Amino acid sequence: MSQQRFTHLDEQGHAHMVDVTDKEVSERVAIAESWVSLNQETFELIAAGGIKKGDVLATARIAGIMAAKRCSDLIPLCHPLALTKVKVEFELHPRSHRIRIESLCKLAGRTGVEMEALTAASVAALTIYDMCKAVDKGILIESTRLLEKSGGKSGHWQREDGRA
Amino acid sequence: MSQQRFTHLDEQGHAHMVDVTDKEVSERVAIAESWVSLNQETFELIAAGGIKKGDVLATARIAGIMAAKRCSDLIPLCHPLALTKVKVEFELHPRSHRIRIESLCKLAGRTGVEMEALTAASVAALTIYDMCKAVDKGILIESTRLLEKSGGKSGHWQREDGRA
Amino acid sequence: MSQQRFTHLDEQGHAHMVDVTDKEVSERVAIAESWVSLNQETFELIAAGGIKKGDVLATARIAGIMAAKRCSDLIPLCHPLALTKVKVEFELHPRSHRIRIESLCKLAGRTGVEMEALTAASVAALTIYDMCKAVDKGILIESTRLLEKSGGKSGHWQREDGRA
Amino acid sequence: MSQQRFTHLDEQGHAHMVDVTDKEVSERVAIAESWVSLNQETFELIAAGGIKKGDVLATARIAGIMAAKRCSDLIPLCHPLALTKVKVEFELHPRSHRIRIESLCKLAGRTGVEMEALTAASVAALTIYDMCKAVDKGILIESTRLLEKSGGKSGHWQREDGRA
Amino acid sequence: MSQQRFTHLDEQGHAHMVDVTDKEVSERVAIAESWVSLNQETFELIAAGGIKKGDVLATARIAGIMAAKRCSDLIPLCHPLALTKVKVEFELHPRSHRIRIESLCKLAGRTGVEMEALTAASVAALTIYDMCKAVDKGILIESTRLLEKSGGKSGHWQREDGRA
Amino acid sequence: MSQQRFTHLDEQGHAHMVDVTDKEVSERVAIAESWVSLNQETFELIAAGGIKKGDVLATARIAGIMAAKRCSDLIPLCHPLALTKVKVEFELHPRSHRIRIESLCKLAGRTGVEMEALTAASVAALTIYDMCKAVDKGILIESTRLLEKSGGKSGHWQREDGRA
Repeated sequence: MSQQRFTHLDEQGHAHMVDVTDKEVSERVAIAESWVSLNQETFELIAAGGIKKGDVLATARIAGIMAAKRCSDLIPLCHPLALTKVKVEFELHPRSHRIRIESLCKLAGRTGVEMEALTAASVAALTIYDMCKAVDKGILIESTRLLEKSGGKSGHWQREDGRA
Repeated sequence: MSQQRFTHLDEQGHAHMVDVTDKEVSERVAIAESWVSLNQETFELIAAGGIKKGDVLATARIAGIMAAKRCSDLIPLCHPLALTKVKVEFELHPRSHRIRIESLCKLAGRTGVEMEALTAASVAALTIYDMCKAVDKGILIESTRLLEKSGGKSGHWQREDGRA
Repeated sequence: MSQQRFTHLDEQGHAHMVDVTDKEVSERVAIAESWVSLNQETFELIAAGGIKKGDVLATARIAGIMAAKRCSDLIPLCHPLALTKVKVEFELHPRSHRIRIESLCKLAGRTGVEMEALTAASVAALTIYDMCKAVDKGILIESTRLLEKSGGKSGHWQREDGRA
Repeated sequence: MSQQRFTHLDEQGHAHMVDVTDKEVSERVAIAESWVSLNQETFELIAAGGIKKGDVLATARIAGIMAAKRCSDLIPLCHPLALTKVKVEFELHPRSHRIRIESLCKLAGRTGVEMEALTAASVAALTIYDMCKAVDKGILIESTRLLEKSGGKSGHWQREDGRA
Repeated sequence: MSQQRFTHLDEQGHAHMVDVTDKEVSERVAIAESWVSLNQETFELIAAGGIKKGDVLATARIAGIMAAKRCSDLIPLCHPLALTKVKVEFELHPRSHRIRIESLCKLAGRTGVEMEALTAASVAALTIYDMCKAVDKGILIESTRLLEKSGGKSGHWQREDGRA
Repeated sequence: MSQQRFTHLDEQGHAHMVDVTDKEVSERVAIAESWVSLNQETFELIAAGGIKKGDVLATARIAGIMAAKRCSDLIPLCHPLALTKVKVEFELHPRSHRIRIESLCKLAGRTGVEMEALTAASVAALTIYDMCKAVDKGILIESTRLLEKSGGKSGHWQREDGRA
């Protein structure tokens, strides 16, 4: 249970970008989610929106995709990666007035893409927040987390209490 | 309850960056929070860390501050703002193995800084996630939300179920 | 007709960012356009698209708005500006299979926003190009130009052969 | 002639970054051009410029090269790429008072570099616009387009009405 | 001589972006320099270069100007600023085979622009390094420092052992 | 001793990004250093700082690591690279009141990482400057230089008057 298990800290406890030079190139996939909880009225404005709804979610989708590409620029110790696929999708949950965001990132590379997927989901959530905040001050971004990852030495992993 | 209350959509439902040219310059403040839930072991590694803990939270703090400055570059319809103060702080909650992040942004400007504060808190949370993910796959970022804002025409607002 | 009329070059002919410290803060507006010419089939795929069309133009709109905010980061001698409004709109011209992009930028500041509007229109055009290039290799971006500007010492200007 | 030929839209018509993980790494090249049309006086100021001309075109060249590297940050669905060569050149056309910009991008990678070349040419054109706009309000950026591409499954392609 | 004189650290010693909301807007200027020392042969290649020399220094100049605009994106606790003038100049010192870079930044704002000027000089120096490193491995960047600043409460300051 | 040895200039003396498409992928390492000279009082504030010192150097370390990833965005002709390791370390030299910064970058790629290491060291130095400038106006950044590089056709190189 020693400290060195924080791979992003060296033996002196100083942050560094971990050496992945010798890791093998393999196909890496990560799936993450984030939930945005709105009040009923705001949720219905989005859900009933037809074309108009379109632009709220389309904007959040683009923001999420672009943020995945910027991940290593935001998260200090992330490696710069040439992502080969990014996807951001939305599910509307009318009963709980919540929107579920699911992001998927893929790479043929030397390190995993969890942070890219989590960044995509978070920034998509923040974008929905931004577009709705004038009508709903009580918005909550909840449960941002990794659902699944594969590739690399640690293989396939799936959150047990995974997708709702 | 009409659609145009989504200020970020014009009459055709298309996204645009809202006109704030004629808003008066006033002092704007926003405070946001985000919670990161870890397993007990990871939490203790951080909490017991002494100097070593230092670098995890210092890294997350810097990431949050820098992200606040990048907000308009990430969130498509946010206005570019010349923030005059950014602060990111951490509270360790040993019983629940959670870290609470509180961010504060300030500006003398024409529009609010909620999204800047929320982005700072989110990216600080993602950075903690990144630094702990090798030892704890079950991390959860929860309850990212605005706590308080002031300045501008809408005046002071505080979340009722505010600070825990 | 002397060389020093290139305001971006100093007396030695070297590039510099022009001093605008003493210019007065006024409301500045600029409107620009860009035309994208597609083949008939591609144009109809977009025009007939219903919801699906939505995402092509919504993506180009967001790209244009975000690019306006990044203008000073792309164009070496542009001043960094805190834009107060950005708008990007599309007109479909079925007879000529062309899409017209119109961008508008606004600022309360010390210098004009022409380059911001032109950058928004150009990047929106490039984004349409990107989304259609798999089905249409012959796309042409034509006639990117300023239509109108106001604010500052030089006052209102409108292109004579202006909007078609 | 079905909608799915827009590779950047999925089956629901939503934007995504296309999966290129399984494409083979090959040498990709793309050549694009953009034309900037000036009034006679401005053109002559540049063409006669000697050293002074140098800095206008040198600035535009650097702006174009840097923009090629930033392409995936500007165009929402472009893949991040590690370009291995970028070149931006200028031809002065005195009779028509036009400057022709030709850009070339190269990559050993999984996807083409057309958008990188087009972005380089566009941003070089915008930079010339910026540097001349104080003396010439009627500048026009015309005919930004792909001239040639090679590499990948689709092989070599050249615009029929190619280089003037 | 207490610790709190590090204005970028709060009372707990944590980094934050200092509050400048209440500082008055005044004209701020800063001048910085950096020296690049080359071997004789490389220096002469640049000094004798005529047009060809042009592009080395023109490239470094543009890099420096663009870096000044990016300062708050690079230096974690710098405030984002809307610079109103940036200038980067070069002096060739044949006897010592050195190039002196002088940068000047200007702003009507709430905080000083020292870091912007220092960043411009540093990145111009790094760009010269980059362009010469294939012919000269022994390049040295020396003596990057502030020469002069004015504006704000602390008024005018000039380095005593100032300009050589 | 001909001009074309400036590999970043083509035959006409114009800047371009050198073609590295055909270079072989190999493990590249570069180590650089930068020295920051402070007055005695400031140096002691840092050296005596305990936890408080932590945040000055931790901030500079993160700034340096992030800047290495941004190198190709700052230095116009640098290739974009997917760095596989970045490390920034500090040595305190009490007698001379100086801090030595050493940076190391690593890559499996087609071109060297000298500029990435030099950029990391420079930006870490600028960050220390920023954090100390309120208490010490006479700070000097000196001796930024490459110490060692390996990988690629030119093999291993080490500065003769290398590490002090």
